Amino acid sequence: MTFPSDQNIIITGFMGTGKTTIGRRLAQRLGRDFVDMDDQLVAHFGKEISQVFADEGEDAFRVAEAQLCQQLAQQSGLVVSTGGGALINAQSRQALAETGVLLCLTATVDAIAARLEAMNDRPMLESSAQSRRQRIQDLLQQRRPAYAAIAHHVDTSGRTPGQIVDAVLATLNGHLEAPNMTRIDVPNPEGGYQICIGEGLIGRAGELMRNRNLRPGAAAVVTNEMIAQHYAEPLLESLRASGYEPTLCLVPEGEQYKTLATVADLYEQFLAAKLDRRSPIIALGGGVVGDMTGFAAASFLRGVPFVQIPTSLLAMVDSSVGGKTGVDLPQGKNLVGAFKQPSVVIIDTDVLSTLPAAEFRCGLAETIKHGVIGAPDLFEQIETHGPASLKHLVADAVRVKVQVVEEDPYESGRRAVLNLGHTFGQAIEPVSEFSIRHGEAVAVGMVAAANMAASLGYCSQELAERTRNVLERVGLPVSVPRGDYDLDALMQAMLFDKKRAGKTLRFIVPRTLGDVIIIDNPGDEHVRAAFETVLQ
Amino acid sequence: MTFPSDQNIIITGFMGTGKTTIGRRLAQRLGRDFVDMDDQLVAHFGKEISQVFADEGEDAFRVAEAQLCQQLAQQSGLVVSTGGGALINAQSRQALAETGVLLCLTATVDAIAARLEAMNDRPMLESSAQSRRQRIQDLLQQRRPAYAAIAHHVDTSGRTPGQIVDAVLATLNGHLEAPNMTRIDVPNPEGGYQICIGEGLIGRAGELMRNRNLRPGAAAVVTNEMIAQHYAEPLLESLRASGYEPTLCLVPEGEQYKTLATVADLYEQFLAAKLDRRSPIIALGGGVVGDMTGFAAASFLRGVPFVQIPTSLLAMVDSSVGGKTGVDLPQGKNLVGAFKQPSVVIIDTDVLSTLPAAEFRCGLAETIKHGVIGAPDLFEQIETHGPASLKHLVADAVRVKVQVVEEDPYESGRRAVLNLGHTFGQAIEPVSEFSIRHGEAVAVGMVAAANMAASLGYCSQELAERTRNVLERVGLPVSVPRGDYDLDALMQAMLFDKKRAGKTLRFIVPRTLGDVIIIDNPGDEHVRAAFETVLQ
Repeated sequence: MTFPSDQNIIITGFMGTGKTTIGRRLAQRLGRDFVDMDDQLVAHFGKEISQVFADEGEDAFRVAEAQLCQQLAQQSGLVVSTGGGALINAQSRQALAETGVLLCLTATVDAIAARLEAMNDRPMLESSAQSRRQRIQDLLQQRRPAYAAIAHHVDTSGRTPGQIVDAVLATLNGHLEAPNMTRIDVPNPEGGYQICIGEGLIGRAGELMRNRNLRPGAAAVVTNEMIAQHYAEPLLESLRASGYEPTLCLVPEGEQYKTLATVADLYEQFLAAKLDRRSPIIALGGGVVGDMTGFAAASFLRGVPFVQIPTSLLAMVDSSVGGKTGVDLPQGKNLVGAFKQPSVVIIDTDVLSTLPAAEFRCGLAETIKHGVIGAPDLFEQIETHGPASLKHLVADAVRVKVQVVEEDPYESGRRAVLNLGHTFGQAIEPVSEFSIRHGEAVAVGMVAAANMAASLGYCSQELAERTRNVLERVGLPVSVPRGDYDLDALMQAMLFDKKRAGKTLRFIVPRTLGDVIIIDNPGDEHVRAAFETVLQ
Repeated sequence: MTFPSDQNIIITGFMGTGKTTIGRRLAQRLGRDFVDMDDQLVAHFGKEISQVFADEGEDAFRVAEAQLCQQLAQQSGLVVSTGGGALINAQSRQALAETGVLLCLTATVDAIAARLEAMNDRPMLESSAQSRRQRIQDLLQQRRPAYAAIAHHVDTSGRTPGQIVDAVLATLNGHLEAPNMTRIDVPNPEGGYQICIGEGLIGRAGELMRNRNLRPGAAAVVTNEMIAQHYAEPLLESLRASGYEPTLCLVPEGEQYKTLATVADLYEQFLAAKLDRRSPIIALGGGVVGDMTGFAAASFLRGVPFVQIPTSLLAMVDSSVGGKTGVDLPQGKNLVGAFKQPSVVIIDTDVLSTLPAAEFRCGLAETIKHGVIGAPDLFEQIETHGPASLKHLVADAVRVKVQVVEEDPYESGRRAVLNLGHTFGQAIEPVSEFSIRHGEAVAVGMVAAANMAASLGYCSQELAERTRNVLERVGLPVSVPRGDYDLDALMQAMLFDKKRAGKTLRFIVPRTLGDVIIIDNPGDEHVRAAFETVLQ
């Protein structure tokens, strides 16, 4: 992969995230000059940075650092690794962003601590391991708002330098397509597609689709009346500006209409819109609209191009990735459907500001779930800052789902880890007669799963508590009222659901943050005990 | 590919089909001893075979040849290439078949003539090229019934020796799975599957499915009442004997029921039969049952394993290969569907004996079409013998379809050649108000396409005449009554159909036997003239 632009590439991030290593490799890969800001400042002062801090104070260092940023912003075609604190300065960020792309490497506190263990020349970390970890955590918390202002983040935890450079290049190329847009590649057996994440992307949908060779001309936008009120006009306008002739196809609102009859009605609308085999069909909405439209697109004329524009947080981080589409039958959910890969997924994070609070929280449950499964940095960010910096949270959560789905495109094994919290949650839902929302049930289910994992010795009690706390922090329920949920009824609901399908009773449980395992049939007494912990 | 058996492998076929070359290569590949019967007989008589014929007469040679066959039948682990006439003797065939697998190499008259051009030691061909060709044709015609009695045929025309050896090994391995069964591999992006062709295979369906890891337990057989009366019991019995617990799911008979409503009813039947994601669904029937069941299997639980057992000649040679499934909407045929690859296709040629004559003829239209597209030997066999030796005809026709589909699995280009005769035919059908059968319309359409090709100089007038004659020979119409089909109405029907889809007017026309090309918009006057040739 190359980077066809002479804009500077500015790599920043906390200490220990690999800025210098990644910057140097990236420069080498692109045949560019590499500048390590700290090296230049050491040369400038004629001494180590710790010595500059000691002799002349941090302020003098920061002034020189800011001047260097202004100088580098005058140049082009460089790869620059900044000092960890350099871009806390808003003016420096702004200057460098004018002639370059800024990218922040991230990592968990534990990963940073481990990487710094062997280093001794960092000015701020000279105490014992325990207080060092605390120091990292405090400093990271303090700097995060500034890092969040940087358009692109790449999580480095658990990745090799080669993988990180690939991810950096993919991100930078996304930026070339649309400034500040993050692009995630989803490889799959049929060739792969991209997920585009950024602010205001609905207004660029036409352009993003044209860039992916989706033929202009007849197209369909499928949505419901409520969503259409908010977003249909800007979307249709963007499509028309790029040469599409979109027809708005409405479906009734609500999960009860996720049926074959609604899909049959969509076929009629597609025919009336004169779609042919190359006409794109765009799903604009949450999971219900996406699932149904995806199945219609998979089956109309034996499959036409499909674009997902998810408008709920849940759909963004979950259902829009993985190709699962379908409708319900009276006998159960998603009994009919297809695996249909989209041509592109367009996630406009501006949409999240208009979501009802309860719906947003439900999406956060799945976001936090993805953090537990494979994005510890995401988990820690919500733990310390709550759901701020949404674009990055969404991107991190999507990356977890992409990775899991990549390992198991047709859902034959590993993909089960995405059901963390669901085995308990899916028992809670029917017992509540579906008065509890799915995301809320998953939140309670995650607490139960973590508690069961701790009591069985799979994870620490501390991790179970952190799981509970982070969910509580964002306003999700972590228990249900004992009066409304009979323990026997919960056990029966769980067993009934599984027995019908002839399946084993399967749980996903955390081991450490970012690592979960699948356990089958742990024994009814442990399941009961776990339910007990979430009945208040 | 290996051949895990110590049975002899006996390669026969007409002169010039490559028996010795292929036999030797095959023996080398398998590390076996190779016996060339003609070489042994030359050694036995102490002179060339032409000399034996001259000195001692053909009878003396045939007696020695038959004795050699009996001797070879006592041995094992050999690859034997016979003389071209050796297996005309039924006793020799029988003896060799007891300890070996017999396989006949085939080729067109032209291919044989070309190959023999350089050879001079053949006793029966010493005259000029023209009379030699005639001699080949006569002798081939005379021997074909004996060759037809041999279980396995491999067409060598246009293939390299390496490709022929591969095809021979694939065929031999099919024989190991079920005696006399021909197996055709269908590679595709999702991993491929096999088409099994032979007599009585419905009675072995369970076994063939188990061999392909289709899980025993719950399964569904989808068919209609009429087909069920003939074949349901032997099929269900075979499935039960292999550990399946099949439920018979009936759909109403007739194309008018190829609808979403029928598919929805199938989902209900599948749920009642307690199928899960690994339960196989078996389509037993013609194209309508296969298309509809395939779509149901593609969409039920987002896709379950699918087995095709086609019961019409048309379904065998056409719709059961290629993965196209679907249902009709009121607005048109096959507007909803999926590409669904089967786990295995089981073609029981015994079924053909119970087909109504008109339906059988319609299947022959598509079979002959495949001959024109890519199986000249098949075409010539029907030309000289009519539809005898059905197992081989079906296998040859299926191979053409497999090859075309392999080059274009999702129907984006080359697969269009399968529409030979269809552009004209699909105009004839609506003008007849669908009183003419599809296969009949295709037959008339092929004549029109060949005539247009001849008048535009794409093919010889002779090929157009041969096309007409072979269709007439098997009882298919080669024209329609001028009184019932108005030329303007035909032109309008053709243009309307295409304009609606915004497509060009595309024709498939023959160049030589076994080679067709796609031509777009040849000009209305040529199309009219071609229609004229089929109005009587």
